[in-house]
Amino acid sequence: MKKQRVGIQGELGAFSQEAARQLLGNRAEVIPYQRFEEVFRALERGKTDAAVIPIENTLAGSIHENYDHLLNFDVGIVAETSVRIVHNLIAPPGVKFGDIRKVYSHPVALSQCLRFFASNPKIERTSFYDTAGAVKMVMAEQAPDAAAIGSQVAAALYGGKILRRSIEDDRHNFTRFFLLCRGRHTKKPQPKARQWKTTLVFTTRNTPGALFRALSAFALRDISLTKIESRPLRGKPWEYLFYVELLGREDDASVQNALRHLAELADFLRVLGSYPKGG
Amino acid sequence: MKKQRVGIQGELGAFSQEAARQLLGNRAEVIPYQRFEEVFRALERGKTDAAVIPIENTLAGSIHENYDHLLNFDVGIVAETSVRIVHNLIAPPGVKFGDIRKVYSHPVALSQCLRFFASNPKIERTSFYDTAGAVKMVMAEQAPDAAAIGSQVAAALYGGKILRRSIEDDRHNFTRFFLLCRGRHTKKPQPKARQWKTTLVFTTRNTPGALFRALSAFALRDISLTKIESRPLRGKPWEYLFYVELLGREDDASVQNALRHLAELADFLRVLGSYPKGG
Repeated sequence: MKKQRVGIQGELGAFSQEAARQLLGNRAEVIPYQRFEEVFRALERGKTDAAVIPIENTLAGSIHENYDHLLNFDVGIVAETSVRIVHNLIAPPGVKFGDIRKVYSHPVALSQCLRFFASNPKIERTSFYDTAGAVKMVMAEQAPDAAAIGSQVAAALYGGKILRRSIEDDRHNFTRFFLLCRGRHTKKPQPKARQWKTTLVFTTRNTPGALFRALSAFALRDISLTKIESRPLRGKPWEYLFYVELLGREDDASVQNALRHLAELADFLRVLGSYPKGG
Repeated sequence: MKKQRVGIQGELGAFSQEAARQLLGNRAEVIPYQRFEEVFRALERGKTDAAVIPIENTLAGSIHENYDHLLNFDVGIVAETSVRIVHNLIAPPGVKFGDIRKVYSHPVALSQCLRFFASNPKIERTSFYDTAGAVKMVMAEQAPDAAAIGSQVAAALYGGKILRRSIEDDRHNFTRFFLLCRGRHTKKPQPKARQWKTTLVFTTRNTPGALFRALSAFALRDISLTKIESRPLRGKPWEYLFYVELLGREDDASVQNALRHLAELADFLRVLGSYPKGG
């Protein structure tokens, strides 16, 4: 069986690769791209079969850039998963914890491990372009006193040894990822799932009560929302774009009715996909 | 007159300092802290008189960490402002653009200037802990072939010359900041303002229609919302926290009535502050 080609942003060993593994197991060949836009374009043009992109993080919020790409490219959401962001101290085999003097990683990762550095004052932090890239570099250089902060996947990929697990300050650090396929309206094999979610985007004028009326489309049909977020529209200071996620499938009768009702009230409405609720 | 002491996160010359200048002019002495939590704690304990913190970015979304701190520390919002994130190429005076071979900055800044690097392939990117820190370092080293990417404030602060202005890929890159004071219920001098905004946080159970009913408190009184965002509550998978911003002041009669109504429907409700609508 030919492996699926899955685009991600970042180096191999990044958290997006862990998300791809959770979503597709080892069936997928992961293709890294530098920018999110390139990931979407490669999928739309058929260079890849799927894409895995982060959409929100529990500390840092929604990644608006990727919501924009979801609107601008002809792709649809087919699955979701969450990855706990665990930072590990990774060194070449043979290097002992007591020998380490320099630790390389992305500044965001370094800044999420401040307690570790406070209790190990002999260790110097050095910023690097990418967490997985830092692991790769430390393994290539084989310095006797250097380590990197990165994911378990990066450690396995580049042959590094994990000397300290989970050194991040805040363990409630999760990133949610979407699995994307080409085309919004292609028939995809539908997995069996107990619960489904549907993600949609709509805009309304900013008149008092506009959002309230829009949400009545769901409330009147007892449809539960699992996410709502407003975002001012670029260059249109009085119009808003809303991201909404609900429990249900686009082709459920009640969801169909709610979408028809919402379409009467919204200036613009697009369903980005229905997918089994992830863990 | 004694200068106000204002806490920010990051090095001097960071965008938070530009926000502080927009909010307070040159009346303020800016005190940098490494972490957001330290900025809030310093304000609560009286080590500073005010704080300026980023709350959301047009590309990267809401900074949930700072919403958490707004709930956990005894501080209130008294003003807002937006800063356009402009990345400039900054070098020591005398260094010419054609001589530059290395550019230092924070990886996020480097990744927002990909078009610049694509059209200048001789220039190598090197990641650094902080944008303002990169400018400081390049000015201290005075290498004849090095530059940094940073803000205009950083260039002025460290004596750098701006060789290329606004080299970022996306000009719709704004960060919104809040000015905070100690205490939520202290009487503050109220500036005259045409329009006011109020920011509040509330939680509801995730029953169908719960949010719809909560928003009726505003819709029934013709109060406009300018932001709404849901966030799952930590450890309580079926409860949601909502951030809402509305046009109006906490002590307006209609807002008072809406808040009383919302308090009947919400499990938890807190007003984080009323402040003049910023540009």
